Amino acid sequence: MPVPHVRALLFDVFGTLFDWRTSLVTALRTFGNERAIACEWESFVDAWRAAYAPSMARVRRGETTWHNLDELHAASFDELAMRFALPPLSEQDRAWIVRRWHELRPWPDVVAGLERLHARYILGTLSNGNVSLLIDLMRSSGIRFDALFSAELFAHYKPDRETYLGAVALLGLAPQDVMLVAAHGADLHAAAALGLRTAFLSRPSEYGPARQADRVPDDGIDLSVSDTGELADVLLA
Amino acid sequence: MPVPHVRALLFDVFGTLFDWRTSLVTALRTFGNERAIACEWESFVDAWRAAYAPSMARVRRGETTWHNLDELHAASFDELAMRFALPPLSEQDRAWIVRRWHELRPWPDVVAGLERLHARYILGTLSNGNVSLLIDLMRSSGIRFDALFSAELFAHYKPDRETYLGAVALLGLAPQDVMLVAAHGADLHAAAALGLRTAFLSRPSEYGPARQADRVPDDGIDLSVSDTGELADVLLA
Repeated sequence: MPVPHVRALLFDVFGTLFDWRTSLVTALRTFGNERAIACEWESFVDAWRAAYAPSMARVRRGETTWHNLDELHAASFDELAMRFALPPLSEQDRAWIVRRWHELRPWPDVVAGLERLHARYILGTLSNGNVSLLIDLMRSSGIRFDALFSAELFAHYKPDRETYLGAVALLGLAPQDVMLVAAHGADLHAAAALGLRTAFLSRPSEYGPARQADRVPDDGIDLSVSDTGELADVLLA
Repeated sequence: MPVPHVRALLFDVFGTLFDWRTSLVTALRTFGNERAIACEWESFVDAWRAAYAPSMARVRRGETTWHNLDELHAASFDELAMRFALPPLSEQDRAWIVRRWHELRPWPDVVAGLERLHARYILGTLSNGNVSLLIDLMRSSGIRFDALFSAELFAHYKPDRETYLGAVALLGLAPQDVMLVAAHGADLHAAAALGLRTAFLSRPSEYGPARQADRVPDDGIDLSVSDTGELADVLLA
């Protein structure tokens, strides 16, 4: 694959940069042990993440006004607390749990890989996470981005075109000068259809043992790498 | 003055963090010498900066659609090139000159002062500069912000309320949890009227010898400091 010349790299966040599943399961298991709450936390977290797509789809179809990801996470948590028969929780506990999405652990390659890429490229997020969530993720993990592009800025969730093209416009660049890096084929295909460059970054254990992570898309991507270190090797070569 | 407890500090950029006048005069004088173009560059730069308020006011009054600051700078440059009788310039030279606003030098205290403040506070810009301009300023000067809040995100220039309240909302905070730091009284007064905390940071030489910089406002501000180092001393005490 020839390496495209771009000026800016935009990164998907959940899954691509952060190991949301292990982070949340660890936090919730500790919480459950402290409060003597029994729950299959892996199943709970998988269901919580799975609720993300339909709750965003309702926003995307216009069935509800704009709600940011914190609000969607809070609403889906309440549904799952009933489904998993959790005991009643204080408002403080509920807020603490929803806030675990602000304190995820990055995959081990990410901090060093992005620091290398930052020397040559403008680095941004392109995430469905809201701005304050992204700020907290980057502060707690020590990742330096030049800009945090969020669906919240455009009141449109990926894969709506407004999000990709909105970020490109704010960068003052043409789509072909911007590369989306993501572990998810649908995100990359939406970006490629709008003229952005694309890099698939595999995260085989994103969903744990029960669900297959996305594999390299068959077509329409410019690069495929195993982590941010390999992305830096390829782009800085 | 008691020190307010806040979570986030938002900084005005032009004048407060960056010495736009010296930076631009130096760049334009070098350009003029190379091209044998004679001009009173101090006067030119002062007039360019002075054009900022009326060109934003036209946007704020709705007399024109949204134009970002790069576009306003380009339009006012063309007017001034005629007024100062500059010779015809290539499109490349014109773009280079307008882009000097992306490569300003920070005041000497800024890089170290913000790095200290970053350890405890969420740091953001709150600037009329467009996003790509802010990205370039921070990359070229090595300043680390958590988020770049720009008038461009809200299609409203300061002192429109949408800009202050838009940034506060994206932070997920209440106005009293956010402090604006600026060298300009009007900016601080607009923020204070909306419930934000305020810190005046003096930049006595912002406008050069011919024009008096803003002095400490008489009322409505929470702190007054001489530079970002003193701000860190006060807030981290």
